[in-house]
Order: sequence, then structure tokens, then C-alpha cells
Amino acid sequence: MRIATWHWGGRLQAGTVSSDGREVTPLAVANAAAGALEIIERLAAGEGLPREAGPRLPMEAVTLAAPIPLPRRNIFCAGRNYRAHAAELATSVFRDTLPAEDKWPILFTKFPETVIGPHDTVRLPDPAITREIDYESELAVIIGTRGRNISRSRAMDHVFGYTVLNDISARDIQVRHQQWVLGKSFDTFCPMGPCIVTPDELDGRDTRIRGWLIPKGPKGGATELRQDGRTRDMIFDIPTLIETCSRGITLLPGDIIATGTPSGVGMGFSPPKWLQAGDRFRIEIDGIGAIDNLFDYA
Amino acid sequence: MRIATWHWGGRLQAGTVSSDGREVTPLAVANAAAGALEIIERLAAGEGLPREAGPRLPMEAVTLAAPIPLPRRNIFCAGRNYRAHAAELATSVFRDTLPAEDKWPILFTKFPETVIGPHDTVRLPDPAITREIDYESELAVIIGTRGRNISRSRAMDHVFGYTVLNDISARDIQVRHQQWVLGKSFDTFCPMGPCIVTPDELDGRDTRIRGWLIPKGPKGGATELRQDGRTRDMIFDIPTLIETCSRGITLLPGDIIATGTPSGVGMGFSPPKWLQAGDRFRIEIDGIGAIDNLFDYA
Repeated sequence: MRIATWHWGGRLQAGTVSSDGREVTPLAVANAAAGALEIIERLAAGEGLPREAGPRLPMEAVTLAAPIPLPRRNIFCAGRNYRAHAAELATSVFRDTLPAEDKWPILFTKFPETVIGPHDTVRLPDPAITREIDYESELAVIIGTRGRNISRSRAMDHVFGYTVLNDISARDIQVRHQQWVLGKSFDTFCPMGPCIVTPDELDGRDTRIRGWLIPKGPKGGATELRQDGRTRDMIFDIPTLIETCSRGITLLPGDIIATGTPSGVGMGFSPPKWLQAGDRFRIEIDGIGAIDNLFDYA
Repeated sequence: MRIATWHWGGRLQAGTVSSDGREVTPLAVANAAAGALEIIERLAAGEGLPREAGPRLPMEAVTLAAPIPLPRRNIFCAGRNYRAHAAELATSVFRDTLPAEDKWPILFTKFPETVIGPHDTVRLPDPAITREIDYESELAVIIGTRGRNISRSRAMDHVFGYTVLNDISARDIQVRHQQWVLGKSFDTFCPMGPCIVTPDELDGRDTRIRGWLIPKGPKGGATELRQDGRTRDMIFDIPTLIETCSRGITLLPGDIIATGTPSGVGMGFSPPKWLQAGDRFRIEIDGIGAIDNLFDYA
């Protein structure tokens, strides 16, 4: 099953996406502003899928929003969770602050208000604040059923589905405050979508993530593949991340865990390659789809 | 003005506290579950205080909840923000991971579901998960009006008021994941209250914070003053914290910024003194009042 949230006729709707991705069907939800969150909660509560609330619509007729437009609390994010990415960080701005090897996952968060839709514009901060804007192509896990102290062996039972997420960072801000949340949480710094795909259609533990820079230019310039990884190469796998996040902390339906990024981020280059106004970044995950966001000043 | 949230007659109410602290008056709010948040939002929107919604009640007749029982997003928290506390950390579990001096504030977050009322019980995690439970007595700033890129000089205009907060930590978890949010966010790890006091009644930039351990014992044991500091001794003052948190991040009415703790935390002792089941910890801030929480297994 594929679940999405979209704007149509001036309002927000949530519902299903056809398997070919060409149509959406709105479902009857009480609070449309919550998007797919209410569908996830109702399924978690053992209720069935809400009834259809209108006719099928062609995908071209709607504007996709993030599946969960405003998460109820910060997004969990894994840091440095692919080996090749860990290696590139060892020569980056992080060289003085990160240990050689992590025995435990690094988990930080992004504020809910960072979330924007799969084709929305990322608002670049004032250049006086930061110019070091970077992308991170990531698989995000959406939690279905609540749980605390969830063991690795039962963790996959708590997965509602998967979506695509760009964990955008201001690298200088991220480093200088030691704790990363501020540099990860600038308004609009978390594009997400295009839909949530449930585990019966996709095994998030082994799929391909790619990220392309589409530089500013007369016709968008030459597209450049920057990231190309497989989720099976995570250092800490999805069950381990769920076990870790739920240790003493009750996970809730609709919680989002971003699972980290493969190698190829802008700060891994020497000198680093930061995103510029007019650039776009596109992320595709096999079995889910793609998000594509312009970076620009407000 | 003093604003509080309380349980009475099986439901939640929000309203004002009399200046002598002996009575509360419920106000007409649409969403009682949000507690004082709706009052803050309405005042921020330029509306007046909601009308009274019932008779005054003696304080003994109600059970105080946290003024904002469930913040809409994670709580901002300053780390290592008092000089004497920074000095005690230099010999603690943090000795290998913290630089000698911070040029920028350390900001991390706690999840909203950590929040409990001023006299609620803190649920200790399974000892197999952690035994290193520590207190931090803190002044919390409640944001009134929204803003982004707020300058230090205008920051105090965005303050709605102040409350008392215990930033409880599991020290081993805090350290081992490098980023602190997990070790700070165990369910019930953020007692808050007893009320919010507005700046016309209290200057949060210079008040006294004290924290007492009340060890488990037949009659509660001998109370031990563990922390005694003044907010004027912060390394990064309240306007600087607001400027920092709002840089690229829109602050919202009801946002909470915990401003850091004075010296005297349990991990500052050699060997460290962790909280045990049956212990209580009491925090009082002059001009606000006190919170007092039992630590116990569920």
C-alpha cells in the first residue's frame, strides 16, 4: 500500500496512491491537516482503512505534500550510519570531534517545522548566518504501532512504512554548537515524500538510494549523481535503530526515524561543495519514488 | 501574572494563580488538554486573557500539572551553561568529549513526552538500561510571540514567562550516543511547574535556583542542598540563547528553552552520586515556586 498527502482544491487530503503511481484516492479523515498521520493511527488502533471520501484523481491534478506534514514531535535521525560516509567524514569539518569508530548509533533530531513537501522549495538562510548547506539522501522509517523497549527481533513489527527524506544541514552551525539539532533544524530543512510505502511492497532493509545534484544553469545544467548506496550497508540496521530509539522512550504511531546517508555528501569533497541558490537536489529510493527540491532565498 | 494547569474534577483546567499562590481561577479555553498553551497563544495573538470559566478554587483542591502538559515539539535545552558547572564536568564522564571552553552555546532537545507535573513521579528505567540517573535544576523560558532571527536586543520581548524544570538525564546513555537527546528523553524525564510567572513579576535574568536531594529513608532522610546558583551566572544569557535558537528556526508561542543548570549535579561528585528509587528531588526558584518529584520504578 502507498499512502500520501496532497493539496487539491485548496485543501489538504490524505489517501492511497495507485500501484502505478498515476492516481490518488482521498480517504475520510477527521483532521486533514494531519495528513497520513490519522490513517497510520487508525490502522495502529486496529481499525481498518478509512472509507473513500471522493473520486480518484490523476496525480497531475494534485500537489503532493509531505506524507506527515507536521510530525507531532521531532524527527529521530541517525548520524554517520554508512561505512563509506563515515570514511568521508574523517577528513571533513568533523575530523576533530568524531571518534574513529562508533560502538553505539549517533541519534539526533530535527524539529517538526523543518518538514516540507517532495517538490517544495528549501529556504536558504541568510548568507550571514551560514553558507555551508549540504544534502543527505535518506530512507525514513515511519513507526506504525507504539512501543517502549522494543527488541531488535520484534522491531520490524512496529514499522508502518518507508519514505524518502533529505536531511539538510548547515554544517558550520551543526559543528559549532556540538549538539547537531540547531544546524539540522532550519525552517524547511526536511523535504519528505512522495508517499509512504508499506513493508508488504518494499523491504527497506535492502533497497537503493541515489541522490543527484541538478546545478543552477540555463537549462538546469548537467545532472550529477552524488550519492548511490544500498540500505543493507547501514552500520546500525533498522531493527537496531528502532531498539535504540525506543529504549526508555515510548515510540508513537507516525514517529519518523531517518536512517542516515550513504557517502557522497557535499562536505566530503575537498574543498567542500555546498548547495547554492538555484540548485536542485533529487533523491530517489527504489520502490518508493523521488523527491526533488529547489534551494533558494525566500 | 501566574498561569498554571491543573487537574480538578477529573479533567484538565488552565488559568491564573493568585499572587499569594493560594487559589486558582479557571479560564475559558477551547482545548483543555493543551493547558496554558492556548492562553499563551491567545495573548500572543493580541487577544486578551480568556474570560473566567468557573469559581476560584483553593490550591489544595487541585492537582497541578505541567503548565504546558505536552509541548508541541521538543524542548530546547542549553548544556554546560554555568561556569561552576562547566568546571565540575571537566572531571566527569564528559572529560574526553567536551572542549575546554565553548565559544557557542550547546543546544540539545528533550522529547515532549518527557514532561510531567511538578509533583508527579519520575519513572526510573530498567536498571539493565541505565543506573546513572541525574538531576539538573533549571530555569525554563517560555516563548510568547513567534519570531525568526531574533536579535539579542529584542529577545526579551519574546519571553512570555518562566517556570521551573528538572532536566533529568541518564548520563551513560547521554554520553555513549554522542548526541544527547536519547539520554535526556526517557519517558517522564522532564518535571515542570508549578506555574509560569510573567516578566512583570520576575526578572529571570537574576534569580536564585536551588535543588535539594531528599534521600529515601524512613522519614525521607536528611534533606541535602545540592545546587544553589543565580541565573546571572549563566555563560550564555537568556537573550543570547533566544538569539541562538531562533537563528533560521522560527520560535513559536509555547516553545520552551531550558537554560542550563548550576553546579552540584550528581555526576560532579567523585564517585558520582546517582538518584536511587525512593529518592526525591526538589527544585525551587525564587519568584516562581518549587517542584518536588519522587523517583521510582513503575
